[in-house]
Amino acid sequence: ASLRMAKTEPSVFAEFSELSEKYHAVNLGQGYPDFPMPDFVKQAAIEAIQGDYNQYSRPAGHTRLVRTLAARYGPKFGRALNGAEEIAVVGGATNAIFSAVVALVDPEDEVVCVEPFFDAPKIAADLMGAKTIGVPLRADWAATSADWKLDLDELEAALSPRTKLLVLNTPHNPTGKVFTPTELEGIAEIVQRYPGLVVLSDEVYEAMVYDGLEHRHIASVPGMFERCLTVFSAGKTFSATGWRVGYVIGPKSLISPLVRVHQASNFSTPTPLQVATAMAFERADQRNYFDEFKSNLQAKRDKLCRLLRVAGLAPIVPEGGYFLLADTTKVGAATPFPLWEAPEDIPLRDRRDFAVCRLLCERAGVTAIPASAFFSQGHRHITDSLARFCFCKEDDTLDEAFRRIVHSG
Amino acid sequence: ASLRMAKTEPSVFAEFSELSEKYHAVNLGQGYPDFPMPDFVKQAAIEAIQGDYNQYSRPAGHTRLVRTLAARYGPKFGRALNGAEEIAVVGGATNAIFSAVVALVDPEDEVVCVEPFFDAPKIAADLMGAKTIGVPLRADWAATSADWKLDLDELEAALSPRTKLLVLNTPHNPTGKVFTPTELEGIAEIVQRYPGLVVLSDEVYEAMVYDGLEHRHIASVPGMFERCLTVFSAGKTFSATGWRVGYVIGPKSLISPLVRVHQASNFSTPTPLQVATAMAFERADQRNYFDEFKSNLQAKRDKLCRLLRVAGLAPIVPEGGYFLLADTTKVGAATPFPLWEAPEDIPLRDRRDFAVCRLLCERAGVTAIPASAFFSQGHRHITDSLARFCFCKEDDTLDEAFRRIVHSG
Ligand SMILES: CSCCC(=O)C(=O)O
Ligand SMILES: CSCCC(=O)C(=O)O
Repeated sequence: ASLRMAKTEPSVFAEFSELSEKYHAVNLGQGYPDFPMPDFVKQAAIEAIQGDYNQYSRPAGHTRLVRTLAARYGPKFGRALNGAEEIAVVGGATNAIFSAVVALVDPEDEVVCVEPFFDAPKIAADLMGAKTIGVPLRADWAATSADWKLDLDELEAALSPRTKLLVLNTPHNPTGKVFTPTELEGIAEIVQRYPGLVVLSDEVYEAMVYDGLEHRHIASVPGMFERCLTVFSAGKTFSATGWRVGYVIGPKSLISPLVRVHQASNFSTPTPLQVATAMAFERADQRNYFDEFKSNLQAKRDKLCRLLRVAGLAPIVPEGGYFLLADTTKVGAATPFPLWEAPEDIPLRDRRDFAVCRLLCERAGVTAIPASAFFSQGHRHITDSLARFCFCKEDDTLDEAFRRIVHSG
Repeated sequence: ASLRMAKTEPSVFAEFSELSEKYHAVNLGQGYPDFPMPDFVKQAAIEAIQGDYNQYSRPAGHTRLVRTLAARYGPKFGRALNGAEEIAVVGGATNAIFSAVVALVDPEDEVVCVEPFFDAPKIAADLMGAKTIGVPLRADWAATSADWKLDLDELEAALSPRTKLLVLNTPHNPTGKVFTPTELEGIAEIVQRYPGLVVLSDEVYEAMVYDGLEHRHIASVPGMFERCLTVFSAGKTFSATGWRVGYVIGPKSLISPLVRVHQASNFSTPTPLQVATAMAFERADQRNYFDEFKSNLQAKRDKLCRLLRVAGLAPIVPEGGYFLLADTTKVGAATPFPLWEAPEDIPLRDRRDFAVCRLLCERAGVTAIPASAFFSQGHRHITDSLARFCFCKEDDTLDEAFRRIVHSG
């Protein structure tokens, strides 16, 4: 293996997916639905396959899809979008993040990530010989809610002339935080003081925002379009995580190098699934798909919160996304998990939340993801008591997870 | 853009695909069929979509596909294959080559490529800060055939302790050469003298070998399995280039870092298309698919050779693959192309074969690819008179290309 490989850590999802299979656990770990994708989306894929959309597409994305996306996102971004030059279709959001890092970051450059965060940008930065710096969200959480805040001074202190990328994520995985317009404007104000700094904004959970809240793009803050690559996922939006269709919106100056990396690494994204994604977007509104999807997921969020509370794990109600964090040390019915003090400097895989999640999988047969895996070394104690549960699951799945946790207690 | 991006050259396919569209040309450029994929393969995809194979797969590949591939390739490789550890499913052969380079090659390392060659390994090496060294196939070509040979002394002279990868391709793009067992053994003998040297063998055209010839894997030469990553393409094999499903077979020691790169860059390969590929392989033999595919393509090869000969372009009959090279300076009917001397040191895009292919597109409305694009600087004069034509096209397409060339003359 290359030396650069030695710097990367194996993914937390690899460990817990394997463990989950081994113990035939109810898997509330990785973020994918266990319910079928909507029929109209399946139907779109079948039409695309039968319609002979089975050869290479344009590397930057099939023309029909980029046009459909330009029409859809133009109003949200507050400007006309040129699909041919300002949109890149890639192999999922992980691929978008990876390609952006390869396209924009040199060795010794710095990537600043708001923590906790999904590990894709860090792995990509490790592979490219760049440094990742985490700026944590912090919160005092109460029994049922947490007000996760980014300290703007702390953000600014992390930036330097070597910072090429600032990685944001809203709605946020794993906290469920939805950044407010004011928060986004505050971040934008700082970013604009650093020429050359690009925001990589992971907004794959844009369709899952609850309680009447609204999702806002940081790219729509005045002056920010030219500074942002915004990442979306057809997989998350249409319950098709296995399709690996993601897309990135940004100015030509940033999209163009990203497309060159994509062409070199993947050549293009599967054509029938791109065309099906275009059809899905074209047909979704008339079916009221997005509203229904959101209210279904909100009901699942509420259900899992209710069940976990009864089971003695204190859930923090998320504002958006697929996930909730639950405090495994809080009051409630007897929790089956030992308490111990976790010193700050122990290795990631020896941390308390890892132990709790392993126990939960082995003893109760339920898979959750330890929250400290989303932090860099030095900030992991912030969530040492938290486990992440995915709620985009059949109601039966959520009920079964509840029964198992209660019976193991 | 990152500094590493500055080293990459834009792909020849980008230029000629654009030109082809602009002039509404008959596109015999990039290697993809314009006939529909087989119905049984479409049917498999529809079953997979309807069967709810739409969420993330295992990053190394869906279990059904890696099992099916292990059973199929074990006998060809002369050993039992462990699908879980010795096969990686990736996003097409380009993605396989890219991932292998990222996984195995460090800055300042060297990648040796037998030339002419498809540019994926060079772009990946450029991005990783490694050096690419070309060792040319050489031939004295007659009017209708060429005996492309790799000089083993020249190969050995190109290797050094810094050489991490030797990139081979058989059946070969663009020459159509199929390496013989004796040639592969000669190469293997040299490779085995360099500890740590890995062969990246691009065998995506394995299903297209004509005139009763047989395709052989260099990995099946005794002692070579541990040294080889062999790359295949479901896209090429099942006329589904837009599916972006490729796979790599090799020892666990090489597959494992490749999978880690793939997980970091793409996470996984589209699940429904993986499951459909498994079904396609499971069902292909009973339909005699591979024999029919091969004889159809052989007939197309012969047809295009016949037509080009009449049109005054001297085709070199290929032994395998999708492509043929034609000499644009040879005798025959009046060719519409000017002759000029090409000095060795002119830039790639100013070379004679580029000019000829541009003229062919603009004046005749037929797209071919200049062969010197497949060589590194210094070896490009070898094929300055050659253009590459893809023959995996409808018979009507080939006939129309012929009419256009003749009428433009
Ligand atoms: C490709 S894994 C995607 C991330 C996710 O779904 C998760 O955080 O569980
Ligand atoms: C991804 S482009 C694949 C290579 C090919 O088909 C070609 O050489 O034309």
